[in-house]
Amino acid sequence: MLERISKDTRLCISMSGRPSNIGTRFHNFLYEELGLDFVYKAFAPANIEDAVAGIRGLGIRGAGVSMPFKEAVLPLVDVLHDSARAIESVNTIVNEDGVLHAYNTDYQAVSDLLVEHRVDPSLPVTVVGSGGMAKAVTAALRHNGFDEGTVLARNEGAGRALARKYGYTWRSDAEGLAPGLIVNATPIGMAGGAESEDLPVPREAVAAAATVFDVVAMPPDTPLVRYARECGVPVITGDEVIALQAALQFELYTGVTPTRDQIRRASEYSRS
Amino acid sequence: MLERISKDTRLCISMSGRPSNIGTRFHNFLYEELGLDFVYKAFAPANIEDAVAGIRGLGIRGAGVSMPFKEAVLPLVDVLHDSARAIESVNTIVNEDGVLHAYNTDYQAVSDLLVEHRVDPSLPVTVVGSGGMAKAVTAALRHNGFDEGTVLARNEGAGRALARKYGYTWRSDAEGLAPGLIVNATPIGMAGGAESEDLPVPREAVAAAATVFDVVAMPPDTPLVRYARECGVPVITGDEVIALQAALQFELYTGVTPTRDQIRRASEYSRS
Repeated sequence: MLERISKDTRLCISMSGRPSNIGTRFHNFLYEELGLDFVYKAFAPANIEDAVAGIRGLGIRGAGVSMPFKEAVLPLVDVLHDSARAIESVNTIVNEDGVLHAYNTDYQAVSDLLVEHRVDPSLPVTVVGSGGMAKAVTAALRHNGFDEGTVLARNEGAGRALARKYGYTWRSDAEGLAPGLIVNATPIGMAGGAESEDLPVPREAVAAAATVFDVVAMPPDTPLVRYARECGVPVITGDEVIALQAALQFELYTGVTPTRDQIRRASEYSRS
Repeated sequence: MLERISKDTRLCISMSGRPSNIGTRFHNFLYEELGLDFVYKAFAPANIEDAVAGIRGLGIRGAGVSMPFKEAVLPLVDVLHDSARAIESVNTIVNEDGVLHAYNTDYQAVSDLLVEHRVDPSLPVTVVGSGGMAKAVTAALRHNGFDEGTVLARNEGAGRALARKYGYTWRSDAEGLAPGLIVNATPIGMAGGAESEDLPVPREAVAAAATVFDVVAMPPDTPLVRYARECGVPVITGDEVIALQAALQFELYTGVTPTRDQIRRASEYSRS
């Protein structure tokens, strides 16, 4: 029933080129669970400038920002917080009485998971990919003291630029990678993608790794994650990233910190 | 539960200086009743230009427009339909694939109720008031062939202008009104107002009237309506206007026509 929605109910939204239902289900589940007077809905904006104007004009409380708008909103917000500034990419807007604050909880979540899983920062790291998520991952790694790293990317321009920015080395060839932490920040292994059955690095590299971190969340058990587990290599999975970043957004919007169990149940519900 | 809200759920809103819960409850009740994938929420826009930009940018399906925005939105929409053009006042915006269509369902509802209650257009009519609702009422009366009329208003400037526009006579004095149709388009009799216990015209005029039409909806049994009923004078009440105009909005947003019984129940629920 929608009976609990009133004029005072606060609206949070997401803005994405191709919305999924995950955010809508995750947030609405927790609003119910915690008895918060909020409602959440995903949008596919026709025009990002007008959409952000609408956040101001209507007093929408918060907005998740996904592809292709993460950089386009940079000039449209008022306060850029460290997490968004570090990678010049916004995935969360919070409207504080008409002042739009911007954050990047993907960056924050990756950073927090490295700490939580006690990954040793002295390990050499390989970041696979050179897109927006690879940027967030590389910045989070450097922020956590991972000083020795390789960006493994097919795109030489983007790969070299990312590596240079963070003092890492670029390479396009996966042969003979240094064993250590391997982070997949590409869509390889994602359900429905062209490479859903593939591994982003050779099997030998997975077997030799100290830890494997896959940002792909759908499915949480990608071929990379499954093979790492077979080899007894510790893994950090994309569904952990997506759940933690969503929980961080949830806190920014509502001021309420859900318990781990609530986040786990909301996350399960959001993909059911 | 909010569980049925998904990325595909369409959002309708209202924009008002001081929102009530009536619209939110009315529309959400009917969405549930009819199994429509919509959700409705009232807003108090900080800025009407940005709010209307947000309707476009986010693809919000429809918006009810209340005071003080009914005239301010005129230059912000794309297509002005007859009902809004007639009184240069918008209370409904419908977003058809990015093209904003504007209507005035108050005007339409008053017009439809005059027909439905078979009020004889040859009766002399007295419109009490000179504000936005008086404008809608007077235009609807003229549209329905009520050619002989008086605008009874304390405000001489607004009263004279309104009367002149529709070929009616202005007066500020209620003594010796022609018996016929009396329409109250002021807040006199509204709960919580300064004149909640008052009648907008002398008791003799009510007793002599052929029909009394009160646009005040809260309460539906204003002192005017109660006294008219005591005198055996037929009445049209403000809750009929508000329910019908909301049903017209509902049809514009969803393309679905609720039954009379559904409108009645939604209307009762909306004020419970």
